[in-house]
Amino acid sequence: MFNERIYNFSAGPSMLPLPVLEQAAAEMTNYRGSGMSVMEMSHRSKAYLSIFEETKADFKRLLAVPDTHEILFMQGGATLQFAAVPMNLIGTTGKADYANSGNFANLAAKEAKKYGEVRIAASSEDKNHTYIPAQSALKISPDAAYFHYCANNTIEGTEWKYIPATGGVPLACDMSSNIMSKPVDVSKYGVIYAGVQKNMAPAGMAVVILDKKLAGKELAYTPKLMSYQVLLDSDSMHNTPPCYTIYMLGLVLKWLDRQGGLAGMEKIKAERAKILYDYLDGSPLFKGCASPEARSDMNVTFRTGNEELDAKFAKEAAAAGFENLKGHRNVGGMRASIYNAMPTEGVVKLVEFMKNFELKNK
Amino acid sequence: MFNERIYNFSAGPSMLPLPVLEQAAAEMTNYRGSGMSVMEMSHRSKAYLSIFEETKADFKRLLAVPDTHEILFMQGGATLQFAAVPMNLIGTTGKADYANSGNFANLAAKEAKKYGEVRIAASSEDKNHTYIPAQSALKISPDAAYFHYCANNTIEGTEWKYIPATGGVPLACDMSSNIMSKPVDVSKYGVIYAGVQKNMAPAGMAVVILDKKLAGKELAYTPKLMSYQVLLDSDSMHNTPPCYTIYMLGLVLKWLDRQGGLAGMEKIKAERAKILYDYLDGSPLFKGCASPEARSDMNVTFRTGNEELDAKFAKEAAAAGFENLKGHRNVGGMRASIYNAMPTEGVVKLVEFMKNFELKNK
Repeated sequence: MFNERIYNFSAGPSMLPLPVLEQAAAEMTNYRGSGMSVMEMSHRSKAYLSIFEETKADFKRLLAVPDTHEILFMQGGATLQFAAVPMNLIGTTGKADYANSGNFANLAAKEAKKYGEVRIAASSEDKNHTYIPAQSALKISPDAAYFHYCANNTIEGTEWKYIPATGGVPLACDMSSNIMSKPVDVSKYGVIYAGVQKNMAPAGMAVVILDKKLAGKELAYTPKLMSYQVLLDSDSMHNTPPCYTIYMLGLVLKWLDRQGGLAGMEKIKAERAKILYDYLDGSPLFKGCASPEARSDMNVTFRTGNEELDAKFAKEAAAAGFENLKGHRNVGGMRASIYNAMPTEGVVKLVEFMKNFELKNK
Repeated sequence: MFNERIYNFSAGPSMLPLPVLEQAAAEMTNYRGSGMSVMEMSHRSKAYLSIFEETKADFKRLLAVPDTHEILFMQGGATLQFAAVPMNLIGTTGKADYANSGNFANLAAKEAKKYGEVRIAASSEDKNHTYIPAQSALKISPDAAYFHYCANNTIEGTEWKYIPATGGVPLACDMSSNIMSKPVDVSKYGVIYAGVQKNMAPAGMAVVILDKKLAGKELAYTPKLMSYQVLLDSDSMHNTPPCYTIYMLGLVLKWLDRQGGLAGMEKIKAERAKILYDYLDGSPLFKGCASPEARSDMNVTFRTGNEELDAKFAKEAAAAGFENLKGHRNVGGMRASIYNAMPTEGVVKLVEFMKNFELKNK
């Protein structure tokens, strides 16, 4: 039993800012004099549309989404986008190129094979995805309908530090685990998508940022709710959207503004990650798993080299209020997911705890 | 500005029980000593799995779901099921029969045409869907992979009062707007689905109740997240489910228990609807739209016969704290959606308001 809130290093769903949760609680039974909860509002009502439009506008402003692009709120998380991206985009040439830089990148490529010819343009599988393929290693063909990559590999703890140049092939990107952690040049992308449950909101939605000129070419059997054109035409209201999740996203975006927007967040996340990586680089016990130049600022993977000791660490850490440090079952070891809502103080205290553990277990 | 909660007659999203909202608010920042919000929990954590399993068990108990069937939590609402049902079931014969008893029933049939041959087994279009086709009018062929109907027509205010006999053809049913309002013999159905945003939880999920023997026959291009077999095999956790929506569903199910379960709810909803229909039957001003034998206990449609007066009524009612009484744009008039969470008192007070309006506008 914890009377206080703990530091939750979960890879997703993950921490949300405390002021956001407090505001949601305060507004739960009667949202700003509407006489009802946001959960109870008709999605077509003035009260709800005002929340919806403000959230969309804040999202576009924070990420500097250009007028060529539109944002869509879609259900099914990033996983349904693994199918939606090819269903909507592969039809132009029947072929698409994928970078296999980790577990989810690979799952996206596998799903796309149902809809056309999928070619692996680059892979880091030879070293268990501990690095990111270099630009020079990407084999992108001009006849690809798009090139797809996963910007941050949650399980392996690696992050692309560059935007791939594709020679004009539309760029498709899964940004689920690092969106809103730094500014991004959206104009370079054909489509960006992100499950919201890491940096943005409670689980149950993906945000899609689409270059509008790519819409309208979906395969004939695409479900209406997965058609980018249908979502564009209906402003994400072809059916009832996940209204409360969008409201929570709106509260998180206001909180992001108070952190200095994405430039402010980039500074915070770089400092926060550096504290942990600097410690790992000097520790005689813990070692980082990812190649230094590819290290993710969102998911920090590390291990002792001894599985029993790893398990002991994760267990003792949880008892001390540092939850969910066990690594993904695919790779073992430990993982500290330090998304936007993780206070820097949480990492400082984790490092203190790790130092003590190191002393007791050397 | 309303300092108190109002009576919200929205067709969905719609009212939730106040004690449920109060509990959600109280548990928002620290769920029962976990040190975190339910929104922040890893979907694989013990704390969350306990919520998930209890919700599933309560759902099955309340609706008396037999062991032959399993429940699945899926994203995309009922609309994505309009595609998922044929993608999963139509492959066995390539043909399916649909009853067109209203707007959403018709949308389901249209979407299914992408996946096979769709035949209209019955229609109430000749009288603007103000009635429900009789059993004797259903033309169900033995070679249909399934027969689909919509149990309650939200827009038109009609409700099927019988379970169609199909001669062995699997029965598929959209119960979005009357699920959990009364006991149902689940064993008669191949698949039941329902968007949760009317009687069960905030928007952003559908519950699917599936006869397990129907799974595993999906079309080759079915997205993994829409495959009933994949969802069955992963216990609805192929990807991160809409965790908080499931938690809210769980709170609503506990509240349903306190109303006497579905037998108790059936009594409450019948009495609540009768108050409004009895008044309509005697009113010189307001007239019910649906054929009396097909009237829905969830959505009560009515009109004055004068569009200006209808608009005046909806506006004055909203100002008095009776929100969302305007009928759907397809049919006009008025609609009072009186789902499970609408207190009977809300209908009593609405009838008082209508009587006063009648006196002033005769």
